[in-house]
Amino acid sequence: MTKIVDDPETFASSALAGFASVYRRYVRLVRGGVVRATAVPAGKVSVIVGGGSGHYPAFAGYVGPGMADAAVAGEIFASPSTAAVARVCRNAEQGGGIVLGFGNYAGDVLNFGVAAERLRAEGIDVRIVTVTDDVASAPADSRLQRRGIAGDFVVFKVAGAAAEAGLGIDEVERVTRLANDRTFSFGVAFGGCTLPGAAEPLFTVPKGTMALGLGIHGEPGIRDTDIVPAGELAKLLADAVLAERPAGARRAAVLLNGLGATKYEELFVLWGAVEERLQASGVDLVAPEVGEYVTSLDMQGCSLTVMWLDEELERYWLAPCDTPVFRRGETIRTEPAAVRAGGGDEAPAFGLATPASQAGARCLAGILDAMVAALGEAEAELGRIDAFAGDGDHGQGMRRGAGAAREAIHQAVAGGAGARSALAAAGDAWADRAGGTSGAIWGLLLRSWSSALSDDRALDDGDIVRGAHLALADVMRLGGAKPGDKTLVDAFVPFVAALETARADGLPLKEAWRKASAVCEEAARATAPLAPRLGRARPLAERSIGHPDAGAVSLALVAATVAACL
Amino acid sequence: MTKIVDDPETFASSALAGFASVYRRYVRLVRGGVVRATAVPAGKVSVIVGGGSGHYPAFAGYVGPGMADAAVAGEIFASPSTAAVARVCRNAEQGGGIVLGFGNYAGDVLNFGVAAERLRAEGIDVRIVTVTDDVASAPADSRLQRRGIAGDFVVFKVAGAAAEAGLGIDEVERVTRLANDRTFSFGVAFGGCTLPGAAEPLFTVPKGTMALGLGIHGEPGIRDTDIVPAGELAKLLADAVLAERPAGARRAAVLLNGLGATKYEELFVLWGAVEERLQASGVDLVAPEVGEYVTSLDMQGCSLTVMWLDEELERYWLAPCDTPVFRRGETIRTEPAAVRAGGGDEAPAFGLATPASQAGARCLAGILDAMVAALGEAEAELGRIDAFAGDGDHGQGMRRGAGAAREAIHQAVAGGAGARSALAAAGDAWADRAGGTSGAIWGLLLRSWSSALSDDRALDDGDIVRGAHLALADVMRLGGAKPGDKTLVDAFVPFVAALETARADGLPLKEAWRKASAVCEEAARATAPLAPRLGRARPLAERSIGHPDAGAVSLALVAATVAACL
Repeated sequence: MTKIVDDPETFASSALAGFASVYRRYVRLVRGGVVRATAVPAGKVSVIVGGGSGHYPAFAGYVGPGMADAAVAGEIFASPSTAAVARVCRNAEQGGGIVLGFGNYAGDVLNFGVAAERLRAEGIDVRIVTVTDDVASAPADSRLQRRGIAGDFVVFKVAGAAAEAGLGIDEVERVTRLANDRTFSFGVAFGGCTLPGAAEPLFTVPKGTMALGLGIHGEPGIRDTDIVPAGELAKLLADAVLAERPAGARRAAVLLNGLGATKYEELFVLWGAVEERLQASGVDLVAPEVGEYVTSLDMQGCSLTVMWLDEELERYWLAPCDTPVFRRGETIRTEPAAVRAGGGDEAPAFGLATPASQAGARCLAGILDAMVAALGEAEAELGRIDAFAGDGDHGQGMRRGAGAAREAIHQAVAGGAGARSALAAAGDAWADRAGGTSGAIWGLLLRSWSSALSDDRALDDGDIVRGAHLALADVMRLGGAKPGDKTLVDAFVPFVAALETARADGLPLKEAWRKASAVCEEAARATAPLAPRLGRARPLAERSIGHPDAGAVSLALVAATVAACL
Repeated sequence: MTKIVDDPETFASSALAGFASVYRRYVRLVRGGVVRATAVPAGKVSVIVGGGSGHYPAFAGYVGPGMADAAVAGEIFASPSTAAVARVCRNAEQGGGIVLGFGNYAGDVLNFGVAAERLRAEGIDVRIVTVTDDVASAPADSRLQRRGIAGDFVVFKVAGAAAEAGLGIDEVERVTRLANDRTFSFGVAFGGCTLPGAAEPLFTVPKGTMALGLGIHGEPGIRDTDIVPAGELAKLLADAVLAERPAGARRAAVLLNGLGATKYEELFVLWGAVEERLQASGVDLVAPEVGEYVTSLDMQGCSLTVMWLDEELERYWLAPCDTPVFRRGETIRTEPAAVRAGGGDEAPAFGLATPASQAGARCLAGILDAMVAALGEAEAELGRIDAFAGDGDHGQGMRRGAGAAREAIHQAVAGGAGARSALAAAGDAWADRAGGTSGAIWGLLLRSWSSALSDDRALDDGDIVRGAHLALADVMRLGGAKPGDKTLVDAFVPFVAALETARADGLPLKEAWRKASAVCEEAARATAPLAPRLGRARPLAERSIGHPDAGAVSLALVAATVAACL
């Protein structure tokens, strides 16, 4: 829904004025539209496009060298007036005549048509090409009745390139018609759009469903269906546009267009599946585009457009252009990079290790097995505790991290790694796969701990205690948390202190660890909320106090699990 | 809400892979991020940026010549792992060292920090610059604790340009820190965002209100307030970032950033007011940008960023760059255009007219006065009739168009126009100001009618009848409607036929017109719905049948009004 409005009556013209101000290098505002702000060769055919507003970047965003010479903009979803079309044309005309391009809607056909008559009476040669790409709007044998949707973009790109190449008006008209004849689109909508100032959407799509073939102003679609996963949606869109593939057509310009409120990330997810589907059908994709090119205010949905290329269309599709929203060609000259071998994606190789240290590594692997079991059991509880102050994913992260660490340490053991290398590999895997802050902390903790161990000697109690000290120091230094910040540090500091004290008192590791583990559990229970931390915190109102910190609790759980293994 | 998903667990990595596939000219996918696909000079400082996913085009969209060398991408709203940061850095490093840039969040500080330590241990010189631009997140005396939001974009742009210019790592680090020190942002949110696969938003903003200072992951803002018009919102944003303006600072890079579900049209409307406000405060705007540069999934809202420039920062802000989402510099060489005088924006000049024709023009102006009065009274009723099959704005359009036509004809009369020129001017004004299909039709109708009149002779009954014939022919030819299509044509055809017949029978114009007007009214009542017309139609389910067509009704109303004037 539109939230930034001054006066709904002037929304479209205010938006156009703001656009023209930002992009003054490209366009100059005239009443009812924009014309190029850059010099155009005298005698060039002018490509002038337009339609209602609410479809940004259509159509003003297309104005610039290599694409349109001007764009006419009506009110939201309403054709520009005849006078506006004529006025913008007079401002942009360069003596080579005008090709007027617009989507096939009654109001536009009328206003552009009447304007064309008026301009012809003034001695300007004007040709009209209406875009009719929407396969959902009429059957294949009634192509002239089809609506224009995202196909506008690819057809206008070709028209602009042909004009920029210096073709005469007959040729620009012919190429533009050819582009339209070979362009097919199909769209789906997940939700409606709301006119500026209106409280309710123009139309709605029932929750959990999508409307197939809906137009860009909420015109009727073919049918509603349940929302499907991205892979199926890709198939549905691809099959619809492939149905009218001309005989022998193989190379295609492809556009996956977002309608306004569909996120780029969603389009990219869909794109992976669309690309695969088209390639499986023997389509060679030529410079595909994914993004918002023809929108419908804040409508949720997308469309797929295919323009079947011949040599001529491909040349114009690929030709350089430079507009506010779309460019081809480089601003800085580049060469492809050589692909670098390695770069850290390969599995680590382990140095030589003694059998004694390898035995230590096996012992550590056994401890990881126990940790995975314990954290798996506690996953839901840890998540529940985390949800009071965080986003509730702590248990999931610990389970995932420990699982990755276990896998890595068993691989390391199988590869002959010593205790130090094996534990380091476990830490790296934990950090890499668990993600987030706790994953980083645990990865760091294990890796720092490993630096006290050795690939030469057997596991040594003194090394293990020194490792605990190093791990705590690195976690505090790099993690930035101090005792009292309600993090794992609150339980880790007393744990290490107790472990070191007990060892200094001469207790064997097993007993020292058990004592430290009990202290750790006590400390975890005692963690209490402090001032909100910076960063990804939930709103204050949702926070709850009086619950232990999930990070401290999971440390205590791990400490107790290890104690049982010693 | 996210609708295009396969597996929520792999949403972020699927989106990154789709992005990398589309933009293969720019980037190459590595595990956890992307690196430049184009060759980079050996020894260049690498600018590597990153953070959680869900902020597209941050951060992968920034990779290309003149900006970033690589981007690391974590899960949605979660820091990338230490291993991912290190891996992407190893893939992108060119021997000149690395400047790591990211927003100031605990998880990112940790993971990028630990990765930097690891890379330094491998002999790579790594510097860290955290972005801290969000003035809402901490007071001015605690700048280091501030979050990074849209300021990421401007700071990374400067860093990338400095590195591309060949500066050494000390200098690139210094310039990047300087850019961050002089960058201030403030944002508002109108609505929450929803994680892929989740049924409910992460947070919500109460309807009709906006949250001031909300972060890009829904972190707490300063306070909620009622949504204000665009002009006030501009003041609020501008005042917040201007509050920390350094002494003497005048020139500024400015970014108005959309958070994901705020439309470009809305941003452009807001931009007009922001630009005015900043200029009134003595700010010189240098190459401002308006659009989506740092988003937060499908969050509604926007932020304003100001980077105060000195000579050095301005040079790097303006330097060429070429990335998937942002470029500076031309792909096609251009010169500014000379602004064309005229072009149809000026008032029309009228040719010589005889006093007799000028008297006819005054008579027509009187008829327009009566039409405006009649259409004003009927506005609501015409809207009601239109709402059954259209969007209910017919009465409004007729009132607006007739009013513009009356204004124009009185101006023409004052300018000495004859009947023909005066009626043509009225038609043009109607079409230009009423907009839409009915505005175009009425403009055409009056203009075609005028072509039978003269600027030399007095109004002549035969000319008037011939004008009706011409008007009908043009409306049918250019409007494309046939009798039975349930348009004004259904009433216009019998009107003209009756008028011509009555005149041929020797009736004076006044009586002939009255007869024709009665026939017209009858025909308007008899209009009945046919098959849905193509184009901006409402869904079938909302259509109602059995009501007369609003266009035919308004023609009958005008005919009756004119009859009373004759």
